[in-house]
Amino acid sequence: MDYQHIRTDLDEKILTITLNRPDRLNAFTLRMKDELVHAFGEADQNDAVRAVIVTGAGKVFCAGMEMQPEEGGNVFGYDEAEGMDPPLEQIRDSGGEVSLAIYNCRKPVIGAINGAAVGVGITMTLPMDIRLVAANSKIGFVFTQRGLTPEACSSWFLPRVVGIQKAMEWVISGDIFMAEEGVEAGLFHSAHDKGEVVDVARCIARKMIAKSSPVAAALAKQMLWRNPNFAHPMQAHAVESKMIYWSNEFWDGRDGFTSFLEKREPRFETPLADIPTQFDFWHEPELG
Amino acid sequence: MDYQHIRTDLDEKILTITLNRPDRLNAFTLRMKDELVHAFGEADQNDAVRAVIVTGAGKVFCAGMEMQPEEGGNVFGYDEAEGMDPPLEQIRDSGGEVSLAIYNCRKPVIGAINGAAVGVGITMTLPMDIRLVAANSKIGFVFTQRGLTPEACSSWFLPRVVGIQKAMEWVISGDIFMAEEGVEAGLFHSAHDKGEVVDVARCIARKMIAKSSPVAAALAKQMLWRNPNFAHPMQAHAVESKMIYWSNEFWDGRDGFTSFLEKREPRFETPLADIPTQFDFWHEPELG
Amino acid sequence: MDYQHIRTDLDEKILTITLNRPDRLNAFTLRMKDELVHAFGEADQNDAVRAVIVTGAGKVFCAGMEMQPEEGGNVFGYDEAEGMDPPLEQIRDSGGEVSLAIYNCRKPVIGAINGAAVGVGITMTLPMDIRLVAANSKIGFVFTQRGLTPEACSSWFLPRVVGIQKAMEWVISGDIFMAEEGVEAGLFHSAHDKGEVVDVARCIARKMIAKSSPVAAALAKQMLWRNPNFAHPMQAHAVESKMIYWSNEFWDGRDGFTSFLEKREPRFETPLADIPTQFDFWHEPELG
Repeated sequence: MDYQHIRTDLDEKILTITLNRPDRLNAFTLRMKDELVHAFGEADQNDAVRAVIVTGAGKVFCAGMEMQPEEGGNVFGYDEAEGMDPPLEQIRDSGGEVSLAIYNCRKPVIGAINGAAVGVGITMTLPMDIRLVAANSKIGFVFTQRGLTPEACSSWFLPRVVGIQKAMEWVISGDIFMAEEGVEAGLFHSAHDKGEVVDVARCIARKMIAKSSPVAAALAKQMLWRNPNFAHPMQAHAVESKMIYWSNEFWDGRDGFTSFLEKREPRFETPLADIPTQFDFWHEPELG
Repeated sequence: MDYQHIRTDLDEKILTITLNRPDRLNAFTLRMKDELVHAFGEADQNDAVRAVIVTGAGKVFCAGMEMQPEEGGNVFGYDEAEGMDPPLEQIRDSGGEVSLAIYNCRKPVIGAINGAAVGVGITMTLPMDIRLVAANSKIGFVFTQRGLTPEACSSWFLPRVVGIQKAMEWVISGDIFMAEEGVEAGLFHSAHDKGEVVDVARCIARKMIAKSSPVAAALAKQMLWRNPNFAHPMQAHAVESKMIYWSNEFWDGRDGFTSFLEKREPRFETPLADIPTQFDFWHEPELG
Repeated sequence: MDYQHIRTDLDEKILTITLNRPDRLNAFTLRMKDELVHAFGEADQNDAVRAVIVTGAGKVFCAGMEMQPEEGGNVFGYDEAEGMDPPLEQIRDSGGEVSLAIYNCRKPVIGAINGAAVGVGITMTLPMDIRLVAANSKIGFVFTQRGLTPEACSSWFLPRVVGIQKAMEWVISGDIFMAEEGVEAGLFHSAHDKGEVVDVARCIARKMIAKSSPVAAALAKQMLWRNPNFAHPMQAHAVESKMIYWSNEFWDGRDGFTSFLEKREPRFETPLADIPTQFDFWHEPELG
């Protein structure tokens, strides 16, 4: 795919995805959506990618939805939709498509939010595993001030990340707040100088991939997002019992065990392609 | 309804509900329960109400269940119940009826906890969206010290708000603790001088309603409480996709978009009555 | 049961379980698993036990899975398992069996983590209600560095306890971190001098049992862990309504109410054996 609204760079097994419309404050377009979904799908499959960093070109991270689409047409992509109940395919929230692509990507995703992030600019970062932010950045879940409701699966993610009190305060008012308030509330892992956000993200990414098994890390990411949604820990126990058995008998756990006994570094050579992409204990609902 | 145990005042589109039995430390009665359920139902439907503040008359917020009912009869309202398994209607926890009324009220609810809050006095505040507290107030989930179990849906809300460690420590012991410990644990948004708790609550309420669309705010509140309970973000995506489509095409999002292009303030005139009160993607269970 | 890898002491109605292989840094064995499951089952049933403390003999809490089993055989207990899909009984994660035993124990469990805790040494503490830690202890969810995935139901518990950002950072990297980072993230209730961890745990345990009804506390623990997993607070309301009715009419709530009117201390004499061990509103899934 020929990326026009994002840019990707792969270095040290870390894929950096840069929102790349700096003259438009990296405003989010339907094209950007397609490119992000594609990039996260590739990152998921590609053994050469161990971690993903997402950042923005220029001074801000993302100013939200582009309200002046160059190509005309409906900003939200509702061109075919009619009436109150069109097929869900015709009215899919574009931010949500990105969020689900991030949720389904098995590599850890670190948001390096290098400046202001409002609307979909902040909500699309919620499924990222870790969010770093540039100090003094303006952040806003501004939807209600535009007559709109939260999107990009933020109604699912935000209360989990910051609790209901902060989520409600930010979303109901739609007000802008500063990155530091977000750090205190747990929205962001930490705040850093603007010029250092990506560097810190790289440090964390390097630490994540330095000594861990690629397949164990990929499975662990899925387990940490999916298993807490079971209603009882017994269900997590069933998943974990299978995963650790498979790891021990067939995947990188064999090398992990042998290398421990042999007092050498493990090699962890199991390719991700050997791992099922679907497991029957995790039901992924169809759209609608 | 002729309120005797609460008082209501509507000003600046903010409804203030005051627990109003100061000579009895605002102890909770079955009549107070009926009045609160009624008041939150009205607040939900009334377009003139954009936010709700709950506080107490006098020096405390609420001393818990009234143990000396003036009218005689069973304190808990079990007059018709017999045996181990009477119909649930006969043994409904009265605090829980209030909590569900708050949960179902589509306007943001801010607890302005002006002093001591124990038993149902604190548990009924858990479904409120934001809780402010007077500094140095005594707080207690005292149930186990009375031989009782948690009520007012607190077993559902409290671990979500403060995590399991603090919830367990407070509830198992039944001990009194100070408001400041509650702030640190996230039970309260913040602590303030006794005389300023309601003022701060009004500031937050004003900020919440100043620039936001009434219907978008009402829908956002429902989404933030309900969508995280789905087992997969795809289900939130389906809800969000419909909500933002309806907002854009039929509700205040149209004015939000047009006002942005016309560089004017939005008017947000969609009446709440235009919005469905039931959506088929949110299943509200029947009692029992 | 004749305990060889743990030790138990009962004093002041507090059962202390000590991981007791100090010469092996209390490394976790399949025998230790059986003994822990047995001890928590006894603690659950025994009216003489009101709270449980878990600690380790010697300088560390638990160094993780014992990799050099004295009796030979498979470290993980997979001796009978063959192929990709053996019966779940043959490949049950042993840490998960302990975690479920703790989850099902109706007495509050306090982890007094007296030193380093890695692998199953830390994951088995996640279902404990409160975790105290010795300052400067090394902690690590080291699985991915061994080619393994998280176990002991940690994929279910950890994100609930510390949120997804910290869970992801620790688990994906598999790195060792210091106890103080765990306190800040909410993994631990608090850090203390090594020699005082058990003392502080006893203080908390004493406070928990001092004035509370044994059966109300036991039911409250179950409610706080189980009810938040319902998809709607109405379901918690139904459970709570029954529990508080039963407490008031048949269990310790009667004495709680009478003692209040009579201005005396309650006696709380309802034996735990009077309380059902299964309730039909809590579905406990079968294995697999």
